[in-house]
Amino acid sequence: MILEDNLKFSLLFEMYGNLLTEKQKLYLDGYLNKNLSLTEIAEVNNTSRQAVNDLIKRSFKILNYYESKLQLLNKFEKVKQEVNNLLDNNNIQQDYLQKKLNEILEVL
Amino acid sequence: MILEDNLKFSLLFEMYGNLLTEKQKLYLDGYLNKNLSLTEIAEVNNTSRQAVNDLIKRSFKILNYYESKLQLLNKFEKVKQEVNNLLDNNNIQQDYLQKKLNEILEVL
Repeated sequence: MILEDNLKFSLLFEMYGNLLTEKQKLYLDGYLNKNLSLTEIAEVNNTSRQAVNDLIKRSFKILNYYESKLQLLNKFEKVKQEVNNLLDNNNIQQDYLQKKLNEILEVL
Repeated sequence: MILEDNLKFSLLFEMYGNLLTEKQKLYLDGYLNKNLSLTEIAEVNNTSRQAVNDLIKRSFKILNYYESKLQLLNKFEKVKQEVNNLLDNNNIQQDYLQKKLNEILEVL
């Protein structure tokens, strides 16, 4: 197996995927979204399992690089969490809501 | 003058600036955040006005490229706008709030 935290890479792929090449996108979509094995991706694309492995590893490095520079997934996830917290709260007081919304704006 | 919409580039610089080189960051910071003229930036950095002009133009292209691929400024601005609308609304009904918060989550 390449790496364990596929959920993290799915989110990074969603955020920064458009900066990858078509081939990188194709393999990562198979691996992360369609849950294909490396061997399956290799067969479909008429290449070796090792080549798929290398390309996916390299793509993960690129995604990690963008997140290390931009920290946008981190920001989005914080805001999502805050919004979800507000949704879970069934009886929000106006001043509490304003405080929380202002906190969200500070993150953005 | 290089380009008119400096506000847009300030926001793009804030979002994607860490993907630029140190020199690009330095000149853009002077131009967009410190409101220095091209001539002033050239003098401080011991170079020509034309060189500063070229580098800033090139940096703007890079920032535009990232936004064209990722559309993250666009997303952030939409969410900010929605959150500001909620803040402006002084007496929010719970079901209206839930609807709006769910819309925000869809953008993120």
